[in-house]
Amino acid sequence: MKYPSVLADLIECYKKLPGVGEKTAERMALSTLDMDEEVLNLFGDSLKQVKTKITRCKRCNNLAEGELCEVCKAKDRDKKTLCIVEEPKDVIIFEKIGSYKGLYHVLDGLISPLDGIEPSDLNLDNLVERIEKEKIEEVIIAVKPSIEGETTSLYISRILEKLPVKVSKIAHGIPIGVDMEYIDALTLSLALEDRTNLS
Amino acid sequence: MKYPSVLADLIECYKKLPGVGEKTAERMALSTLDMDEEVLNLFGDSLKQVKTKITRCKRCNNLAEGELCEVCKAKDRDKKTLCIVEEPKDVIIFEKIGSYKGLYHVLDGLISPLDGIEPSDLNLDNLVERIEKEKIEEVIIAVKPSIEGETTSLYISRILEKLPVKVSKIAHGIPIGVDMEYIDALTLSLALEDRTNLS
Repeated sequence: MKYPSVLADLIECYKKLPGVGEKTAERMALSTLDMDEEVLNLFGDSLKQVKTKITRCKRCNNLAEGELCEVCKAKDRDKKTLCIVEEPKDVIIFEKIGSYKGLYHVLDGLISPLDGIEPSDLNLDNLVERIEKEKIEEVIIAVKPSIEGETTSLYISRILEKLPVKVSKIAHGIPIGVDMEYIDALTLSLALEDRTNLS
Repeated sequence: MKYPSVLADLIECYKKLPGVGEKTAERMALSTLDMDEEVLNLFGDSLKQVKTKITRCKRCNNLAEGELCEVCKAKDRDKKTLCIVEEPKDVIIFEKIGSYKGLYHVLDGLISPLDGIEPSDLNLDNLVERIEKEKIEEVIIAVKPSIEGETTSLYISRILEKLPVKVSKIAHGIPIGVDMEYIDALTLSLALEDRTNLS
């Protein structure tokens, strides 16, 4: 038996979500039939509008509705500190922990010569200008510790060399609560390199 | 930071799907931003139309687009055998295994006096009439082996008692490939009761 075509379409769409296979998609599609009309309309409209309604922040390139993102619009942020991240998702991760109060700069990728991603493909053009104009005092590079991350990190620290700004990088090392034996060699060597003095 | 409101709406909607919590919903919402405009439009339209486009089959109460469902419309079915199931989902499950070639009758529930679900709440009114009119020769009751299932099963076999129709019930027992030690007591006693003769 074929599914009725609307259901078949729904299953195909659900399957495009991360971690959703055939069986889960079917379960989701069937459970959709039990949802309220109201929820389905909101769900449908949100999906159709998400691409047009969500833009990028003119200042930091984070996800936004309108000109500026929620972080750039907020009045209570430390406007002298800038955290450079790879993707908008990273902003959300940092905002969740809540301890960072500065601004962001979203690169939208990492330099990867092998994949043909050059510095000019990233949101780096206005970085120097932004730091000068906004009188940023500290730049924290918070990209993942991969080859691409390290290359990007190095590139950024080079272009910021001549500016009167402190540049730092988040610590890479052993995460809390993880058994040493599960740590890969690269992380371990980074953790050794970045060791902190206790005395 | 708040999510942009369209994204927040999407997260709430994704959370209504079975097995989707906060974190998965966020991942799904963010991945939605990477989907093609085309997919998003199909996804959104399907969700908005699913309730109106999907109706119930006039004959068997299965999910349908239009008057009759795919099974009732099909020409190559054994029209003398009727399988009674609880939900449309069960039809899909049976159709997947592919070995059943008869028709269905979807009850839309099981009798449950404790929950106030009486025989009149189920799609049972036209069952006797349907069996007589369509000259059904065998009725297979295929509901789950719970108290509600057994009650419903018993009720149906009673109302069909006087009809010239064979009534059977699918076998309940030990599933294939499962270790005996993991089988619950009820299943085990049902399996004992429904034992088949080998000699």
